[in-house]
Amino acid sequence: MRWSQAFIPTLRENPKEAEIPSHQLMLRAGLLRQVAGGIYTFLPLGFRVLKKIEHIVREEMDRAGALEVLMPAVHPKEMWERTGRYTAINEILFKLKDRTGREFVLGPTHEEIVTALVANDIKSYRQLPKNLYQIQTKFRDEPRPRFGLIRVKEFTMKDAYSFDMDDAAADRSYQSMYDAYVRIFQRLGLKTCVVEAHSGAMGGSHSHEFMVMSPAGEDRIASCGECGYAANLEKATSRLTDGKDVPVQAEDGDLNVEVPDVLPVEKFPTPGVKTIADLTKPPYDVPAARQIKTLVYVVDSKPALFLIRGDHDLNEAKVITATGGTLCRAAEAEEIRKALGASPGSLGAVGVKHVPVYADEALRDTTDMVTGANEDGFHLRGVDITKDIAVAKWVDLRTVRSGEGCPKCDSVLRVDTAIEIGHVFKLGTKYSVAVGANFLDEKGESKPMIMGCYGIGVSRLVAAIIEQHHDKDGIQWPPGVAPYKVCISPVNLAHAETKALAEQSYADLQARGVEVILDDREERPGIKFKDADLVGFPVRVTIGEKGLAKGQVEVRLRKTGETRLVDKAKALDETLALLV
Amino acid sequence: MRWSQAFIPTLRENPKEAEIPSHQLMLRAGLLRQVAGGIYTFLPLGFRVLKKIEHIVREEMDRAGALEVLMPAVHPKEMWERTGRYTAINEILFKLKDRTGREFVLGPTHEEIVTALVANDIKSYRQLPKNLYQIQTKFRDEPRPRFGLIRVKEFTMKDAYSFDMDDAAADRSYQSMYDAYVRIFQRLGLKTCVVEAHSGAMGGSHSHEFMVMSPAGEDRIASCGECGYAANLEKATSRLTDGKDVPVQAEDGDLNVEVPDVLPVEKFPTPGVKTIADLTKPPYDVPAARQIKTLVYVVDSKPALFLIRGDHDLNEAKVITATGGTLCRAAEAEEIRKALGASPGSLGAVGVKHVPVYADEALRDTTDMVTGANEDGFHLRGVDITKDIAVAKWVDLRTVRSGEGCPKCDSVLRVDTAIEIGHVFKLGTKYSVAVGANFLDEKGESKPMIMGCYGIGVSRLVAAIIEQHHDKDGIQWPPGVAPYKVCISPVNLAHAETKALAEQSYADLQARGVEVILDDREERPGIKFKDADLVGFPVRVTIGEKGLAKGQVEVRLRKTGETRLVDKAKALDETLALLV
Repeated sequence: MRWSQAFIPTLRENPKEAEIPSHQLMLRAGLLRQVAGGIYTFLPLGFRVLKKIEHIVREEMDRAGALEVLMPAVHPKEMWERTGRYTAINEILFKLKDRTGREFVLGPTHEEIVTALVANDIKSYRQLPKNLYQIQTKFRDEPRPRFGLIRVKEFTMKDAYSFDMDDAAADRSYQSMYDAYVRIFQRLGLKTCVVEAHSGAMGGSHSHEFMVMSPAGEDRIASCGECGYAANLEKATSRLTDGKDVPVQAEDGDLNVEVPDVLPVEKFPTPGVKTIADLTKPPYDVPAARQIKTLVYVVDSKPALFLIRGDHDLNEAKVITATGGTLCRAAEAEEIRKALGASPGSLGAVGVKHVPVYADEALRDTTDMVTGANEDGFHLRGVDITKDIAVAKWVDLRTVRSGEGCPKCDSVLRVDTAIEIGHVFKLGTKYSVAVGANFLDEKGESKPMIMGCYGIGVSRLVAAIIEQHHDKDGIQWPPGVAPYKVCISPVNLAHAETKALAEQSYADLQARGVEVILDDREERPGIKFKDADLVGFPVRVTIGEKGLAKGQVEVRLRKTGETRLVDKAKALDETLALLV
Repeated sequence: MRWSQAFIPTLRENPKEAEIPSHQLMLRAGLLRQVAGGIYTFLPLGFRVLKKIEHIVREEMDRAGALEVLMPAVHPKEMWERTGRYTAINEILFKLKDRTGREFVLGPTHEEIVTALVANDIKSYRQLPKNLYQIQTKFRDEPRPRFGLIRVKEFTMKDAYSFDMDDAAADRSYQSMYDAYVRIFQRLGLKTCVVEAHSGAMGGSHSHEFMVMSPAGEDRIASCGECGYAANLEKATSRLTDGKDVPVQAEDGDLNVEVPDVLPVEKFPTPGVKTIADLTKPPYDVPAARQIKTLVYVVDSKPALFLIRGDHDLNEAKVITATGGTLCRAAEAEEIRKALGASPGSLGAVGVKHVPVYADEALRDTTDMVTGANEDGFHLRGVDITKDIAVAKWVDLRTVRSGEGCPKCDSVLRVDTAIEIGHVFKLGTKYSVAVGANFLDEKGESKPMIMGCYGIGVSRLVAAIIEQHHDKDGIQWPPGVAPYKVCISPVNLAHAETKALAEQSYADLQARGVEVILDDREERPGIKFKDADLVGFPVRVTIGEKGLAKGQVEVRLRKTGETRLVDKAKALDETLALLV
């Protein structure tokens, strides 16, 4: 490609709307343009990168035996109602109607469609296993699109769905995808961290996320540098370093009074107290860690109570896991009043029997705790959770924090942000049962297929790669995904020998099958070099009058900045050697 | 690929819903499944064909210097309002809102998006010409999806947009795309007919359609076998074989009365007469060709009259062309009464001055015509169109019919149905002016870019190729788009030599880079052969015990049915030779 005929609208300044390096660099290097919030056009260079990523993903999926298909973006609403997800993830679904009034959604994922397909066309164990995948456009009504390609409304995804006859086979399919993902991300030049994950609205028993650690990420990961434990905060657990039940030192108050084991529950007036923090202040002085925080959530339309220690945060993903529900939300004030007879600020679970009570493990065996009295303006003290509260289920509910103990070893956890780039789920039979994807086994018995699903955010990978491969001057593409591998920069095209060698090198590299761009623009060398660094071609070959006087050209590796003056006759070999 | 591991759900019977060969065969050969009306999933074999078509399209677009991009499917409504097309093609737009209530449409085409992109990033004549293209999913709220991939709601399209500094350059871009299309369809093995076309809602001055003649088509083409004239009926003209003005023989009545040139206009009662046909019956006996049909259309919100001869049909595309409007529809009864004071059935243009009157060329100089009196139950006779009607513009309005004279030679036209597979438009400045896509020319003057747009229905091509390449047993893929080029069919895998040679041939062909499928299923040979013919692999290699006894295998060409027994040692070379 000749630069003069390409379309690479580079920008000198960082666009104001871009907060993170990948977003800034994609705009500045002329890879991407915004059409609306969370909706983008890939310009020619960005598109080339996207296609290269797709190609690597496709090769590894094919190698793993998956079969590529193409499912539609427009899905009949009924198919989503059948699995319950029209309700469960309603908020992120884009909805539309055709001219007859029939209702559709734009697919954010394709379990409904692929399971119906397989239900219709696979009938026997002899047709199993099957793994169907596609690289296709997904739509999601994101509340806050941001960070360029990290959180968008329309994006390219690779989604795969495996169908197996039993659990052991499904585990093999899962492992095969896991291994393919490891290869894919390696080939893309990405350092990834694999974490245990929450299955969320997908359902299913088991899942891992592939993460790229980055301050630009939207996920939070707890990990242990010692034993390698790593999990998404939606799933992560920890060992409390302050002892399992009563902390010696809480974050927001000293805990310096030794109390006897059993005290009577006593109601006391707390006019105006609405929060955990209010109670930590005089005249009450109750440390947050001595309080039981009572939260009311509506899980699949039914209210339930969730108790956590006052200094902890509830994790909504764990509410889903704990209850086995599919959809949860904080209860409205009116629903809370109906359930407990009080307003938020005075809620408690003492004596509550008509609403199920889930309590976080960190509260187990706690005594002399303070909690709301379910009477506005009153709290209870001396609460012994075992004796005074009818806990239906002890579960993990709180969000892990940096510095807490690793659940697997003696070390401590750290919490970092990360970009999720891949996710593998073992789904079990949730969708095959809902949709009726059954097969006849060897004995002629009808059974639901065991499913897995496997996603990679293909367009997001462009951003993730840039987040891991850039410096202050621009992008540093790994050669496997670079839009062009070599940029030839003639310093002055008016110089005949420069021009001739530039054209010759361009032809030679093309003849060797190397993707090369010739910067034939009539621009100052400084601008050419800046643009080449900004776009980030792995190798730049600079051809100038001065060097040629000595029979030399300059070959420069973008990643390290290493520059070599080489004999012009050896420039081609040198360039090829650097691309390996 | 081993057939046992592929996903090729062939069907024995023609599905009831499929009316045309391509639809039937795509379902039967396991290429396609319907998700909803006009919405399909491509199964692995169908997807492979789609990718091969995309690959050929991409190669030829790249060769023509076009640059590939990827624009989004979700477009802000405002961008469509700015060009007037939110109204003009509102009916086929799928609309949606995000959670904040912002309105979007799903793009059925991308002039709005690409022009805004270019307006922002191309400022100088030095950046021109540019041709940006994409292969991307389009959405259209079709009133009657049918014929499999011919008329659908969601489809893959290649759309390209050229931007030039002047008309001459724009013509070169147009020609370059025209030539690329010729190469693309040749490589796809398609016989096409290029016709002059109506620009429709695209606007613009000039366009050609690439058509595949087929009874399954939805377009109608008038063509002359003698001189090569060919045009879409939306655009086609003809020479009336019955003379330009008064026909000697009309289709629905004899015309055997010689009439004097000038007669007075006379009103006569026609109670109950509502149609042209009513007036042809006794007691009136007015041949349709002697009647002026008066039609009221609303063009861009304003009423206008369109006059055609009673035996002709109005062509709505020509209404658009004649008026230079963008949107037309038949007027409602209420609008007609307001404009002319009468109901349909008694409408006429005699004396009408407040509404523009467009008359078809076939009416020019007609005398002694009959038309409505704009008074319910009355008509006028003795109408001399030149004298009695204030025609604002003489234009081409009628739909051409088979058997009419070719407008370019002495021969006659025939009308056939065809599938539109490509369309090239010279758009001019319609979009660049509306969106503000201007550039500075060499003198520093700001000018709107001259645009062209160029579409290929990529997924529709799968159907078009099958329509031209099938027989009673199934598809006959041209090798360039076949899902696999060779199918190896071992007759009996229990026979050791058969199995060994099948495996060896499979490995050999793969090593040569030939896409091959090995039918390793435990099925009867008859089923294997039927399936191979149905799917339509260009070459089948049959390996059986009988042949091997003589050291031979059978190589069969699907297209011709030609079968050769060849020495097993030469089977590979023979197969490769057939694929050229």
